[in-house]
Parts: sequence; structure tokens; C-alpha cells
Amino acid sequence: MSTSTLTDYGISEALKQLGINEINNGVCTGTKWFETPGEVLESYSATDGQLIAKIKQGTKDDYEKIIQGAEKAFKEWRMMPAPHRGEVVRQIGDELRKYKEPLGKLVSYEMGKIYQEGLGEVQEMIDICDFAVGLSRQLYGLTMHSERPKHRMYEQYHPLGIVGVISAFNFPVAVWSWNAMLAMVCGDVVLWKPSSKTPLCAIATHNIIAKVLKQNNVPEGVCSLIVASSKHVGDNFLADTRVPLISATGSTRVGKRVGAIVGERLGRSLLELGGNNAIIISEHADLDMALRAVLFGAVGTAGQRCTSTRRLIIHESVYENFKQKLVGAYQHIRIGHPLDSKTLVGPLIDKSAVADFNTAIERVKGEGGTILCGGENLNGDGYESGCYVVPAIAEVKKNLPIVCHETFCSTALHHEIQNHR
Amino acid sequence: MSTSTLTDYGISEALKQLGINEINNGVCTGTKWFETPGEVLESYSATDGQLIAKIKQGTKDDYEKIIQGAEKAFKEWRMMPAPHRGEVVRQIGDELRKYKEPLGKLVSYEMGKIYQEGLGEVQEMIDICDFAVGLSRQLYGLTMHSERPKHRMYEQYHPLGIVGVISAFNFPVAVWSWNAMLAMVCGDVVLWKPSSKTPLCAIATHNIIAKVLKQNNVPEGVCSLIVASSKHVGDNFLADTRVPLISATGSTRVGKRVGAIVGERLGRSLLELGGNNAIIISEHADLDMALRAVLFGAVGTAGQRCTSTRRLIIHESVYENFKQKLVGAYQHIRIGHPLDSKTLVGPLIDKSAVADFNTAIERVKGEGGTILCGGENLNGDGYESGCYVVPAIAEVKKNLPIVCHETFCSTALHHEIQNHR
Amino acid sequence: MSTSTLTDYGISEALKQLGINEINNGVCTGTKWFETPGEVLESYSATDGQLIAKIKQGTKDDYEKIIQGAEKAFKEWRMMPAPHRGEVVRQIGDELRKYKEPLGKLVSYEMGKIYQEGLGEVQEMIDICDFAVGLSRQLYGLTMHSERPKHRMYEQYHPLGIVGVISAFNFPVAVWSWNAMLAMVCGDVVLWKPSSKTPLCAIATHNIIAKVLKQNNVPEGVCSLIVASSKHVGDNFLADTRVPLISATGSTRVGKRVGAIVGERLGRSLLELGGNNAIIISEHADLDMALRAVLFGAVGTAGQRCTSTRRLIIHESVYENFKQKLVGAYQHIRIGHPLDSKTLVGPLIDKSAVADFNTAIERVKGEGGTILCGGENLNGDGYESGCYVVPAIAEVKKNLPIVCHETFCSTALHHEIQNHR
Amino acid sequence: MSTSTLTDYGISEALKQLGINEINNGVCTGTKWFETPGEVLESYSATDGQLIAKIKQGTKDDYEKIIQGAEKAFKEWRMMPAPHRGEVVRQIGDELRKYKEPLGKLVSYEMGKIYQEGLGEVQEMIDICDFAVGLSRQLYGLTMHSERPKHRMYEQYHPLGIVGVISAFNFPVAVWSWNAMLAMVCGDVVLWKPSSKTPLCAIATHNIIAKVLKQNNVPEGVCSLIVASSKHVGDNFLADTRVPLISATGSTRVGKRVGAIVGERLGRSLLELGGNNAIIISEHADLDMALRAVLFGAVGTAGQRCTSTRRLIIHESVYENFKQKLVGAYQHIRIGHPLDSKTLVGPLIDKSAVADFNTAIERVKGEGGTILCGGENLNGDGYESGCYVVPAIAEVKKNLPIVCHETFCSTALHHEIQNHR
Repeated sequence: MSTSTLTDYGISEALKQLGINEINNGVCTGTKWFETPGEVLESYSATDGQLIAKIKQGTKDDYEKIIQGAEKAFKEWRMMPAPHRGEVVRQIGDELRKYKEPLGKLVSYEMGKIYQEGLGEVQEMIDICDFAVGLSRQLYGLTMHSERPKHRMYEQYHPLGIVGVISAFNFPVAVWSWNAMLAMVCGDVVLWKPSSKTPLCAIATHNIIAKVLKQNNVPEGVCSLIVASSKHVGDNFLADTRVPLISATGSTRVGKRVGAIVGERLGRSLLELGGNNAIIISEHADLDMALRAVLFGAVGTAGQRCTSTRRLIIHESVYENFKQKLVGAYQHIRIGHPLDSKTLVGPLIDKSAVADFNTAIERVKGEGGTILCGGENLNGDGYESGCYVVPAIAEVKKNLPIVCHETFCSTALHHEIQNHR
Repeated sequence: MSTSTLTDYGISEALKQLGINEINNGVCTGTKWFETPGEVLESYSATDGQLIAKIKQGTKDDYEKIIQGAEKAFKEWRMMPAPHRGEVVRQIGDELRKYKEPLGKLVSYEMGKIYQEGLGEVQEMIDICDFAVGLSRQLYGLTMHSERPKHRMYEQYHPLGIVGVISAFNFPVAVWSWNAMLAMVCGDVVLWKPSSKTPLCAIATHNIIAKVLKQNNVPEGVCSLIVASSKHVGDNFLADTRVPLISATGSTRVGKRVGAIVGERLGRSLLELGGNNAIIISEHADLDMALRAVLFGAVGTAGQRCTSTRRLIIHESVYENFKQKLVGAYQHIRIGHPLDSKTLVGPLIDKSAVADFNTAIERVKGEGGTILCGGENLNGDGYESGCYVVPAIAEVKKNLPIVCHETFCSTALHHEIQNHR
Repeated sequence: MSTSTLTDYGISEALKQLGINEINNGVCTGTKWFETPGEVLESYSATDGQLIAKIKQGTKDDYEKIIQGAEKAFKEWRMMPAPHRGEVVRQIGDELRKYKEPLGKLVSYEMGKIYQEGLGEVQEMIDICDFAVGLSRQLYGLTMHSERPKHRMYEQYHPLGIVGVISAFNFPVAVWSWNAMLAMVCGDVVLWKPSSKTPLCAIATHNIIAKVLKQNNVPEGVCSLIVASSKHVGDNFLADTRVPLISATGSTRVGKRVGAIVGERLGRSLLELGGNNAIIISEHADLDMALRAVLFGAVGTAGQRCTSTRRLIIHESVYENFKQKLVGAYQHIRIGHPLDSKTLVGPLIDKSAVADFNTAIERVKGEGGTILCGGENLNGDGYESGCYVVPAIAEVKKNLPIVCHETFCSTALHHEIQNHR
Repeated sequence: MSTSTLTDYGISEALKQLGINEINNGVCTGTKWFETPGEVLESYSATDGQLIAKIKQGTKDDYEKIIQGAEKAFKEWRMMPAPHRGEVVRQIGDELRKYKEPLGKLVSYEMGKIYQEGLGEVQEMIDICDFAVGLSRQLYGLTMHSERPKHRMYEQYHPLGIVGVISAFNFPVAVWSWNAMLAMVCGDVVLWKPSSKTPLCAIATHNIIAKVLKQNNVPEGVCSLIVASSKHVGDNFLADTRVPLISATGSTRVGKRVGAIVGERLGRSLLELGGNNAIIISEHADLDMALRAVLFGAVGTAGQRCTSTRRLIIHESVYENFKQKLVGAYQHIRIGHPLDSKTLVGPLIDKSAVADFNTAIERVKGEGGTILCGGENLNGDGYESGCYVVPAIAEVKKNLPIVCHETFCSTALHHEIQNHR
């Protein structure tokens, strides 16, 4: 680990605050970390290619222990009144407020999104805590009148049990919090399997909440974490009938696999998958506002959001004008280290993502599209990690195959709609 | 009663179908009508000035009997499961479907609104029945988690008791149904005091529902009616602690009196009062669509709706243009017998309303406004009742006193807004 | 077809009223029936073993046509305002009221449940119509305040598209109506694949609603029916991405298959599967009320409900007493033709179900349980169909394997709980 | 001010922490306190009869200024997104957590309830903050389907404006917070008129929230306070059309006055008034649990809660037994200084309340009831304030007039119900 690099942007200080060591255990039941014999995972920053830290991953045995602990914890946790569970969540929100800067920095450094987005992600964790605290006194069901005399009916919501959370690299902490904080006030317990590309964000998050769990005597097993390879915690996790709900974020391909395996055992799944969003620019559009919206939507998080703008459909009467504005704006996008406050676009998550990006560019060309700008890989000073690319704009016919599917990186594809209405 | 007039437009046939006799009792507990020694009320049609029928009004003694019957009926009715109450309401809806034409005709003839509006009003009765039937299986309360271990909380809605419904002449049947049908599915019982200007509509309505009440053995007192002078059923009704909810439609002046008297006894009041609605015509407006909207809003029901359009606020850039269009359109408004299918505007409710209209016209002039068109009283053939006037458009400065208060008849007042933003 | 049998209980008259012919088409888009070259299905009554009628089943081609028609109908239907769709459903409810007796009789005759249960099932259809009509004006979403200044958020619910309804023999019409009536007010269109054991109930239902669909010009394809073998409309139906929601009723085994196939394509499934319900009789129980509840729960619908009582768990202090009461009561259960008003228990659905029943009895014995009463197959006069059995009570240890799984016929299994608290 | 007394129980330290001076301004717009020429109010502790501090009360002019400021603040505050308003409320909750002990102590000392109840009241303030923060992202309205093609409807909730809060002495801070925190997240502004018997609690509360208001640049006028005599801020407040909602806590007599005056101007009122609650002890009751419940309900807050238990209705079969238990328990009630941790019952609010208590005791006797225990006034050491009485139990016939109305102090009245069912 190159100290000189880590001190840049205060990263080593942040790691210290977050309790990240050179080697970290990856399995935890809340406040207790398991000694595990599992394989070591190394987390490198897409930002500068440096090794950030190592993680001892969980095994099948660890998974079994974690699940059994969660089942036990559930029996206790579900009996705690919801407003008391809400109070724990409130304190988690306060603790996250304290660690907003270092955690936001780690998100930025491990995943590659710019610092403001890293902070924004932690803010979303805080916001869901506030929301969940309010919910803890509002877990409403309905009462109903019955058709039988002197009878009445009512719903009484009961928690499900263990909620399995599988999160993706692009939102390494927020998605967990959305699931976990709501699950916790409802009386469910949570087992988190984070992306192997961003394990340290998960470990840091667990370090933050551990204080609150301890202080409130929350049973071990209410909030568990397992960093593990899919070989050990994969389909077996999805098929586990002890996990009534699987909440998974990832590609559509993965989502379908989750849907099938969980569906077969009559489990519940919550899926947050990909997208291929288009913005329609009509002849009435305020082009300056549209430009800002497209820019933010297309290149934010280096195009690695499920909600990223991947297509533009532009009315012919404003087509040329808007195209030029957009190509012009793309020239001024600052690409670089995400912790540099002037940067707008950081690196892709890894070299494999760069390869996918290159393939997409080639496919566009092969299918008859034109790259209007961007598409290059960046090398040299500041780009040593090999994960930086220049966002591209492609001009294509609307019926190209590549336009019909998600390309999970910063390619904005334009085409034209004629005779609108 | 001039038979020749009544046969016009099939009115005498409608009266027969609706069970309206020359003299009718005005007090009823559902299916049973009281012999009452009360004063006789005569209902004349604003349409042609003819006496339609007479009503024996209720006395204070009748009121007392009705209330006691309602209290007794409530004890039984509230124990009937809501879906069974809903079944009664469903049958009322079906019965109203059968009598839609004659009842719509009577509404038109006794009150003066055009036939299509009369039918529309009965359709609103039918619609609320459908809505209420659905509600009868959805009278939802909430269940909530408690902060005490092993406790839970839930809401169980109970009916209030007697709901007093005071309705106005301009919607002689629909407003009752909105209140009564919802009250009935909730397990409340209803006492209706209709406007003395439209008592026959109320009696006809009760004749229609009586069959359903009888067939379902609904206790006498669940749906009561009292046609009475305010001397006998007025403030004493409002102040009656046996009537937990008063729902009143009428002028703002009356509403304030209801609010005060019911408020003082910690009762509940539901008030549907006047309005002084304006339509704003901006420089971006589609003037043709705006013209239709203004016309419908201003002259519909001869301007006697709480939602009637009484003011227009027009941007200076389209002011002259729109003014001319509107004045032009007013020339083609067909004023006449509301049962004539070519009529757009019928009579005002009575001669007193005509006097108010004339006063308003004079006030407009006195305060410096200009009558652009209309404002005359109509006489002669077809206008023998003396209740017909020509809808007026006045051009005024925005700060005229008369513009700031409701004028409950067909006067559309225009003024100009300059330098809008 | 033996006329003499059919005239018993007025069945042939009912079939005529319901439009059931000797041979019927099994594929319909609402009012239009397809001529199909598909295999003929014969529907025999479990009641008396008679052939009721024949059905020409749909093929893969028919399925394809039906789906394309449904897609087309959806485009129109979803644009009709929800209250108008509700009006269609209201009329369906009224039409079902008219045909309640013949349809209830056919349900009883084709499926074997007693006439009162057949009528009750049609009443449930009527009730859901009333509920759905109310919902048609209440398809509520939420509006929410945004964290962005001058912005607001709201939900706008849109219909899904084609809802596939797969129903089971034990509730041959009600389950369809629960799904179809709600789907229809929401703007969805419905494709119904009924159980091959009760196809005539489905055809009769479609004959009833056809009048309403026609009268309201409901597009062909809003309510479709396909009687078909699973070979032709089976997994291909489940996997069809043009059917966003599959609602299936059936065994848990089938449910898991639906869950897997629909889950894999990220579809939605609504599953109503089996159960293995127990009633706990505590030492405080009112034994007479418990007896009635157990009897109704265990032998109603010949134990062929997902909610049938299949197990009793009885406190030791009342065990012997309650056991004797129950065995005594079982002696008086009247088993016979379900249209005979004295009958309490009719036949099982077919001979295959009788074989399953016999197997279960043998398993109970083999696993060490004791049959306290019942378990015999009935033959001879009135039992010619070979589908009648005597409900059995078995006394077993709580941990017998057979107790842990659903036996979908009338076997009530008792065992004892000791040292309760 | 006797320092020696105030230092007892840490009161002078608490006053210092809460910013209470010898003389305090009583009018505030959030962070700014008005210099007012109004009459001085002196707040004495019921506990020890000592003067705690003085307050300069607001005049009619102050009221006018406050209202105008609130109107102005409303225009700004309502435009702040609800979640941002929620963030202010969250910080108020955190600030109340910091001051829970001193504020709880002041509540106890100024009003007379025991310290645990004082703390409990502040906890309720904190809880409502958490609840309101959650609500700030959930201010839900409904969206609905329209009966018009291509139209939809939705509710958009808008804040009302100024919410007037009139609080009573018995809950000097919690009731304000329930109203104010919900009003604030909704975008309303609040004007608080506290009871003249507990003005210092209100001033201390405003000192606590001032820091948060300042830090968040909340406009002056969002949270206003006016300590004033009813001569200056009384009916004029109720009648003020600039205050669309009046939330008042107090006696039923006062509530009726609010209802009438606010009702007359078509305003809204939220009333939390008295009660005359009974506990029914049936023959099946767990008498030990009932005893604890009655004791807590009857003597808590010295019987000065709207929810205090004032009547017991006991089944004859357990009547004597329970009566003896209760009279026995009353012997052990520790009456004394509310800040002494051994005390269960503190003083009544003032000598006038003692006089009312004595009158009630005499009325009981005069009407034929028997005082079973208690009823004495306490004097001497520790009781110098003259506000301490001994809770009484009266045995009465059920139809005594005094039983039918609320007696707002600690008198538990027993009587017997015979032939239950």
C-alpha cells in the first residue's frame, strides 16, 4: 500500500476513522467479527489502482453460522416494540451523520464516483433512517368491518424473518440502508452480502453501526454481514428457505436468476435491476434546462447508475441544435480523480468495465452508428489505474440492436424522432 | 293546477310515477308518513308559475317524534354488518336507476334547472350509491404498533348516530344522497330537512327508497324526512345534542350560524356553502376552450351553483378579444322552459331571486361598472312565472365591492389583470 | 346422457338457462366463441358419474390468437375511465344475481360441493363485483411532498396488461371473479384457463357475462377464456412475457412451478395454494362451539378447500371428551347427492381423489395412527359415480410424517398436546 | 426568591440552564423576545409556594405584531420543502434530548406533577419530533381515477397558515409540541398561548428551540409565544380570521366557547377537553392488575389529567373485596414534594383547586355518598404551599349528580353494578 497515494485527499485518515485495517474480517453479526479461514479478497481503487485493504471472506460454514445467529436474533428482535427498534435506527442515523465525510470519501475512493456523490449516498442513508424512525410508529395495517354480525377484522403485520440484501458496486452503501433500516423497524433481521468490488464500504458501515448496536444491546444477528464469493454464498443463499425475502440489486441477468430461484421456493424477492432510460427532447423543450438534465443523467456516476440516461430521442426541429450543444458540453467534462473537487467524471469500476465500454463503442460502429465524440480510453498521469474513459455520444438509427439494451457505462446514444404527432 | 300545463313535457305522468298527490304529508320515518296538523306549504314551479302540489309540514312535536324514532332505529341499524347496510344502498341505487327520468323531470320542474341537469343530478345519486356500496366493505381504520411490549393498537370506527341533513334548493336531491348513502353504510341514521323551495323532490325521493327500505326490513327511523318551517325545525335542530352531526348546504351566512350553534355544543358540522369563483384567462389560454368553460361555468343552473363562475380575470393582451367572443356567445343563449330540450338557461328559483338579481345589476352600475349585455327581466309568452332573466356580463374595476362577494345568480363579472408577472 | 338423471334436481333446466349444449366451444374472447380443431374434453359429474357435456379445447394456435386479441383489447380498455369500467362490472354483478340459482346448481353438479356451497360461491362473485365497483372510483395512489423546492411527487397507477388466471376445480368460478373483477376495474384484461375438471362452470360464467360485454361494447379480448390441456396452454402460458401477471390457484407443487417460471422472466405471480390448517382446542374452549367449527372446517366441501381443517391439536384435559363428541358427530354426517338439501357431504372430485384418500388412510395406519371412524368408500344406490367416501378421523402421534403435509380430502387428524404452558 | 428552597432538588441550576431569569419577557417570535409594557405575571410553585420568576405579559399590540409576523413567516415557511422543515424538527428533538432533565424538573416544579411524570412529558415531546420527522416525507394525499377520459385527479395538501395553540396547566409543554411539531412539518406556523399557571415552562421551551431556529435560519414568526391575560389575548384570538385553526386544551366549558366562536367564523378547532372516565371491574377481572391500573389512573398527576380515572363500576361479586384492597392501597400513597423520588402524589395546581376539591367532597356527602378514605387538606412541614390534599375514595349510588360530571382532582368514586348481563 503506497502511503503517499493514500494520504492524498485524506484517504488514510478516513480509513483510520472508519476502522479499516490492512486485513479485515469480512463476516460479522453486528458487533462481533468472525475469525474465518476463507480466501482473502483484495480491494483495489479504480481511482488510482492502489490496493486499499484486504478482506478475509466468509465460507459456507460462516454462512451457516450467520444464518443460525440471525434466526435466533429474530426471535428476540421481533418482540421489541417497533418504536424501540426505531430508536436504534435513529441513533444509527446520528452515527452516520458523524461519519458522513470519511464514509463518503471511502465510497468515492473504493467505487470511483466523485466525492459529492459519495457524500450524497451517505446522506441518503441518513434520510432513510429519519423516514424509518417515523415509520416505526406508523406500521399501519387496516381494520375492516365484517359481514358477520358482531365481528370485526383487522390486519396485524408481523415481520418476515431474515432479509437477505445483495448489493451492487455502484451504490455500495445506500441500497443496503434502504433495505436494512426499513427491515429493522419492521422487526426483521438483515444479512448483507455486498459486492466483491466494494467490500470495504460495507465493512466500514458495519463498524459505524456497531457502536449503536452495542449501546442498545441489540442482539447479535440483527445486522449481519458476509463478504463472500458467490461460490460460497450464491445460489445456496437464494434458495435458502430460512431467508423469506431476498432484496437484490444488480443486472437484469442476475435479477432473473434471483426471480427464478426465490420464486421456486415461494419466497419473496425485491429486485432493483438495470434500465435503458431515454430522455425525449420535444420541439417545446427548454434546451438549456434539457442540456443540464441530460448531462447530469448521462455522465453522473460515470453512467453506472440503473437510472443513467442512455438514450436521447430528439424532435427533428431541434435535433441539430441540441446535438451541437451536447457535443460542445461533452468537451468540457472534467475527467479525473473523483476526490478532486473539479472532477465531474471519475473512472469506471474496473478494467473489465473498460473492456465492455470499448466493445459497446465497436458495436455501435459495427451496427452503423457514428461516434460524435468521446469513446477513448485514458492513460498516463492520473489515469494509471487504466479505468478512465471519455464519455461518448453516438448518433444512431433508432432500430439498432445496441440501442435496445442497456449499456452500463457512459454512452449516450442519440437518435431522431420524426413527425412527432 | 292547470292540467294542460302539467301534461306538457310529461310532468303529470312523472308526478304520478313518483307518488306525488295534490296534498302530501311532509314527515316520514322511512316507509311511514305522519298525519301532521302542521301548516300547509305550496310548491310552485319557477318554470311556469303553476302550483305543483301541497305539503303538510312538520311541527315541533313531529320533530320530537322523528328524533326519538331515529334514536331507536340507530340502536338496531348500527348492529347490522356494514356490507348488509351496503346491500340496502345498492338496491336504492337500482331503484333510482328505474326512476331516473321522472325524478330528473321533477327536479327540473320544481327547481328550474334544465332537464339534462336534472338527470345529471339523479345520476350523481346513483354514483354515490355505487361508491357507498364499495365502501361498505372498506370502512377502514388503522392498526398500529405500540411502544409497549406485547401490545398493539387499533382503530375501530363506530357510527355517530343521527346525521341531520339540511339541503338547499339548487341541488334538491343529490346533496342529500351524498350524505345519506355514506351515513347509511357507516351505520348512521339520517334526518333530512329539505329546502322549503323544493319539498316535492324530497318527498318523491323518499317514495322511491321506501320500497327498498320495506323489502329489507330497514327499521323505521333510519331514513327520516321532515319538511318544516325553520320556526319549527331550525335552531332547535342545530342545537340538538341528539344530532351529533349536522351537514348543511346553503349560504355562507347560514353556514356561520350552523358553525356557531353546533360548535357551541361540541357537535360536528359539514358545511357546503357559497363561492365567488373566478376563472383566470392568461395570455397563453386556448380561448375557444376557455369560452366553453366560462359559458358552462357561468350560466349553467342559471348561475345558482356554489361552484358557478362569477368572476373572470383576463390578461390585458387577450382582454378585448375574449370579451367580444363572450358577449357574442351570450347573445345565443337560449332562455326558456327547462324541460324544452333546446333551452340552455331556465328560470331563477323564485321572484325574490329575480329581485336580488336586479339589485346586483343596479349595484354594479352604482359602483361604476358597465353592463355589457343582459340584465333584463323576461316577460310574456313562456315567461309567465316572472322568474326569467337574461344573464348579464358586467365590466368592472377589480376592486369594486360587489366583486368581492358572491352574487348567487347569473352575473358574470369581468375585469382585467395587467402586468401579469 | 341419461335424461332421467339430469331432470333430477332441475339440472337440465339449469344447463339450458346457462347455454350449455351437448358440445361447446371452449375458447372465447368475451362474446365470440372460436371454432377450434382442438381435442374434445368430456365433463362427467362426480355426483352421479354422468357425462354432462363435451368441450372442444383450445390449441396453441388458439392461445396465440387469444393473446393477440387481449393485447389489442388492452390498448382500448385501459383508456376507458375506471368508473366506466366499474359500471360494466356492476352490470356483471346484476347478471350474476339473475343466474345465481342455475350457476350455483352447475357448480354443485359439476364439482360435487353441496348446493348451498354452490350458491355461496356465486354470492362471492356478486360480492366482489360490488367491492370492485366501489374501487373503480378509489384506485388511489399517493401524492407526496418532495425535498426539492416547488416540486411535488405523485403516484399514477397504470394497469399491467393481460392477467392470466389459472383456477382450480374446488372453486370453479369464485376465484376467477376475484381476479377478473378487480383486474377489469383496474384496466387490465383477463385470460382465464379453468381447471379441466370443471370447464362447464367457466363456459356458463362466460355465457352470463357475454350479454353485459356486448351491451357495453366492451372490446373483444377484455375477458377471454381458454379451456385447454396443459400440453397446449401450460408452461408456455407461464413463460409468456405478454402476460405480466399470473394468478394461479392449485397445489403447492404447482405453485412452486409457477413461481419459478414467472420469477425467471421477472413477472408477477399471485398464488393461492394449499394448507394444512390445525385448530387448537385449549382447556378453556367452549367445546360445543368448537365442535361446530371443526365439523364445518373439516368436512365442508368434502375437505377439498385450501382452508380445510386437517389437524386438531387438543389439550389433554379435554381430549377424551372432545374426541367422543367429534366421533359421535361424524356418525350423523349425511353423505349423498350434493343437490339433495339434506346432504352435508358430497363426493370427492373424481376417482383419482378417492384413490388418494385411500392411500392417505393406509399411510396413517402404516405410520402407526388409528382410524377412529370413517375411511370407507361408498358404493351402491346413489353412489354409482364411485367418488363418495366416509370422512375419517385418525388419532395419531404429532410427529407422524403424514400429519406434516396437506392431505387434500376429508381426513381430520387428531393429536394431543400435553403440558400446554 | 428563597435561594435555599430553590437549590433543593437542583431547581436553581435547572432554571439557569433553561435561561429563566428573575424577570422574563413573555412574547417571542422564535429567537427574538419583545420588550413589552404588559402587566407582570408571577409564577409561584404549587410545590412549596415560592415565587419562581416573573413574566412580562403581552398586550393587544404585541398580539397584533405577533400575528403579522406569523403571517409573513408563513409565506416563506410554506415554500420550504417539507423534508427540510422536518430536519428543523429533528434538531428540535435532539435539543430537547439535551435539556430533558432540567425541563422535566421545571415542569414538575412549576406545575406540581412528580419528576418522573415531568420527564415523561418531555419524552413525549421528543417522540412527537421523531414521528413528525418521518411524516415530513409522507404528507400523503391521494391520486384518483377520474370518470372523464384522459383526466386524473389528485389531492395536494397545502398548509393552513397560523395555528393557534392554547395549552392547559396540566400538560404545560407536551400538548404544544404535539400541535407545533406536526404543524411545522406541514408548513404551518404556530402561535402558542400557554396557561397563565405555567408560563415558565413555555418560556423555557422557547429558549431551547431558539438555538435550532437560529441555526437553520427559520424565519421569525414560525414559532411564536405570547404569555398574556385572556383580557388581551382571549376571544379576540379565537375570533381572528387570520388564525384558521385553534387547537385548545382545557375544560369542557372553555371548549364549548372555542367551538362557538371559531365555528361562527368557519374556522377549524381541535379540542382536547375533560373526561369523566370509568373503569369497569367485572367478576372476571384480575384484581391485582386492576388495582395497579386504578391507582395509576386515579392518583397520577394528582387526578388532574383529562384521562384520569374518576369512577369505578364494580361487579357485586367482587365489590367488597376490591373496595378493601383499594382503600388499603390508598393508605400507602406517599404525598409530598414532587421532586422527592419517593413521592407518588404531589400538590394540586393551586389553592383554588384545593377549594374545588373540598367542595366536591362536601357535595358527595350532601348527595348521600360516603367518603371511605382521604379528602383531608394537608398542612405543616413540607405542605406550606397549601395545595396538598389526600386523595379520596367515595362510595356512592350510581345516580348521584356529582358522579355524572367531571371533578378535576383526585377523587375516585365507586359504585356498584348489579345483575351484569
